[in-house]
Amino acid sequence: MTAVTSMPPIILLVEPQLVENIGMTARAMMNTGLKELRLVNPRDPWPLGEVHQKRMEAASSGADEILKNAKIFATLEEAIADVNYIYATTARAHDMAHRVMTPKAAIPDMIERAAAGSKVAVMFGRERTGLINDYIVMANAMITIPLNPEHTSLNLAQSVLLVGYEWFQAQDRTPANVLRTGSSIPATREDYLNFFKRLEKALDEAGFFVAEEMRPTMIRNLHNTLQRAEMTEQEIRTWHGVLSALVGIPKARQMKKDKDD
Amino acid sequence: MTAVTSMPPIILLVEPQLVENIGMTARAMMNTGLKELRLVNPRDPWPLGEVHQKRMEAASSGADEILKNAKIFATLEEAIADVNYIYATTARAHDMAHRVMTPKAAIPDMIERAAAGSKVAVMFGRERTGLINDYIVMANAMITIPLNPEHTSLNLAQSVLLVGYEWFQAQDRTPANVLRTGSSIPATREDYLNFFKRLEKALDEAGFFVAEEMRPTMIRNLHNTLQRAEMTEQEIRTWHGVLSALVGIPKARQMKKDKDD
Repeated sequence: MTAVTSMPPIILLVEPQLVENIGMTARAMMNTGLKELRLVNPRDPWPLGEVHQKRMEAASSGADEILKNAKIFATLEEAIADVNYIYATTARAHDMAHRVMTPKAAIPDMIERAAAGSKVAVMFGRERTGLINDYIVMANAMITIPLNPEHTSLNLAQSVLLVGYEWFQAQDRTPANVLRTGSSIPATREDYLNFFKRLEKALDEAGFFVAEEMRPTMIRNLHNTLQRAEMTEQEIRTWHGVLSALVGIPKARQMKKDKDD
Repeated sequence: MTAVTSMPPIILLVEPQLVENIGMTARAMMNTGLKELRLVNPRDPWPLGEVHQKRMEAASSGADEILKNAKIFATLEEAIADVNYIYATTARAHDMAHRVMTPKAAIPDMIERAAAGSKVAVMFGRERTGLINDYIVMANAMITIPLNPEHTSLNLAQSVLLVGYEWFQAQDRTPANVLRTGSSIPATREDYLNFFKRLEKALDEAGFFVAEEMRPTMIRNLHNTLQRAEMTEQEIRTWHGVLSALVGIPKARQMKKDKDD
């Protein structure tokens, strides 16, 4: 279903403050198939002490591989030295002349660049303050996630999740809308019509069609509901059973009654 | 930039266990313009005690309005009684015949239904276990978020965020890719050409074009880099200043030297 082919962008956290957010970022990366994490000047010195390490790992929910391979840099300059194209994520407009993209537009751009051999990175600022202008000028373009203008503040890991999500979706081939039928297979027209003929006959015998002129409309309505249900073979069989039971009940009851009398 | 018109889907948390997740769900809803939260049989009895209430509010990051208006139900049946169409979110396939959509496909479907007057809801199961089959059969369709198949487990609020995100994006009109120029305006062709003529003249005088046959190629390269930069009027003025400074420096130095001698 899924074909992730192009090199995923590097995720660059600049001055992350909370080890929990680093852990949750790794989790979001794992969820969305991103691989490489770089940290610039994290608040807690690296390697982390045992307590911080444990808190980070707990928050990462099993994304140990990403955390283990994370690269730590003292400055942004060192962290981006080998990168060809950088996107800076920001929640708000900065008074700078800069290209600003939605994630939906940035991801195809990123994928094309990566496919052409460029190393691309997406940069996220520290909690609360975001990226300062001195860091944004190091980027080639900005990404701003369109959100409710009255409440644009996202948790750091959630911003990473949304960028990763778009990256994953852009390459994912999951059918957008599919009727999953489990171990059964979809019913054929013949399955429907056979059931419908039985139903119509049973209704005739039960005196359902009181007004003969209404018959075509009623038949159409019944047809429509059944068609819309897009039943499986198994489900048609179940409805055959339902019909048998309902038609059979009076007979069975009668037989039981006869016996009891 | 943003035009959110259609009625947002109701978010339905079935048996949520942690008040923090209820708070973070409210935050994700606020971020993405969702309004109505319904809780079915939350673990902690409602109204919450002071400690739980505070923990929920802290996690909600200011989404008080949504929490205050949240509706609590004892059973799923009561919670969905007035709803016309329900989507159940699941991380994995269930062996049931059911329509399964990606969020990208479900959202337009949702918006069309809402526009036609239907009340729609998206249902999320409890942490760890998700929605059990008895609840999924209450839904009309399922939503499964395509994620890294080896790591599909999302935090409850993150699932809500991704559905809300798609809902918001579907109606958002933010330009996908735009050159934001702040308080300045984009330079015209004339601005470019005037600067370029000055640059070319200065380079000529400085003896830059040593090999005359290379001149057209070099001119083209210089043109291309400047055009690609898509400069603003202000930036062109800055580069005029740069040119003046560079050309002027030897003269100024010479004058200073003459005076000193």
